Amino acid sequence: MTRTETRQALIRAGSEIIARQGFNNTGVSAVLSAAGVPKGSFYYYFSSKEDFGLAVIDDFDAEYDARLDNLLNDTTVAPLQRFRNYFDAGLADMVRYDYGRGCLIGNLSQELAAQNEVFRDRLDTVFSRWTQHFVRCLEQARAANEIGPDQDVEQLAETLLNGWEGAILRAKVARSTAPMTVFADLFFSRMLEGRN
Amino acid sequence: MTRTETRQALIRAGSEIIARQGFNNTGVSAVLSAAGVPKGSFYYYFSSKEDFGLAVIDDFDAEYDARLDNLLNDTTVAPLQRFRNYFDAGLADMVRYDYGRGCLIGNLSQELAAQNEVFRDRLDTVFSRWTQHFVRCLEQARAANEIGPDQDVEQLAETLLNGWEGAILRAKVARSTAPMTVFADLFFSRMLEGRN
Repeated sequence: MTRTETRQALIRAGSEIIARQGFNNTGVSAVLSAAGVPKGSFYYYFSSKEDFGLAVIDDFDAEYDARLDNLLNDTTVAPLQRFRNYFDAGLADMVRYDYGRGCLIGNLSQELAAQNEVFRDRLDTVFSRWTQHFVRCLEQARAANEIGPDQDVEQLAETLLNGWEGAILRAKVARSTAPMTVFADLFFSRMLEGRN
Repeated sequence: MTRTETRQALIRAGSEIIARQGFNNTGVSAVLSAAGVPKGSFYYYFSSKEDFGLAVIDDFDAEYDARLDNLLNDTTVAPLQRFRNYFDAGLADMVRYDYGRGCLIGNLSQELAAQNEVFRDRLDTVFSRWTQHFVRCLEQARAANEIGPDQDVEQLAETLLNGWEGAILRAKVARSTAPMTVFADLFFSRMLEGRN
């Protein structure tokens, strides 16, 4: 493997472990071992464990941002239906990973926001960027008269993302998708004022 | 101090540290040191670190449950106003602790639900019990005609608690109470169907 490929293998192995057991609880040696990379070579790829953690955040962000773009910017689908597809994808993930993961960015936020200003700032940027995908899709729903003209799309987008994060957390604890379904139902039935 | 007092001092010191840096990242020696209890005596008070973690959960649960009871079962205040008081108390906490804590039960859920079935089960019980405080207050709001007769109070209570947890998480990351205010505003303006 090239240096870049090995680095990417470490990021992917690290994401998997960190998603399940957290950043502080993940040892560098476990990541090397999971990726099949020789011990002692970690610092050839990353300047510090923090540098590694930021690379894991950026990797997850890139992948999730692409999913948001695929689902919420799909102009072949009506805007509100795109949100249904987004919720369905999250529900399928929760079951596929057997309630073991949740959202890596949500997990790291919970764990690290109060501990480390560099992580907090990066995670804040990620959430803000994701929120803008919701804003744009809601704007398209408004333009298509699927929601009322006076809808405050920024407020709604923020509540949608944060409420969904909370529902994912509760689903992990309950080992049930019910909290996510309940949230999605309430989103469509109540939060969208002036919906047709 | 009596054995019970020392045990309680360890729980309180542990809660403080765990709320800021997580359970896995909290060492037994740091807890003993913060509580001013001699090193080596931890296992006189707790059979294991897990046993200690469960005691911390129960302690936080008891305190928060009392707050929920005080605020949401206060029959001298109109039911919906009680929710305003509840949101206000959470906002004040977030500022008082300088965005450093969030909700201990939310934090531990994020960290431990997928790792440890004993913790997951206990945290699930806590969330379910808290949800019932919201259900009862919403039932009183319905009886007082503050919300419509067809409101699904279980669905709403679950979304209220989970959405609030998500808003608290986002507030920590943003170092701003705005996500909490936005959620509370949307709760009152949209989620309560048939509100007078």
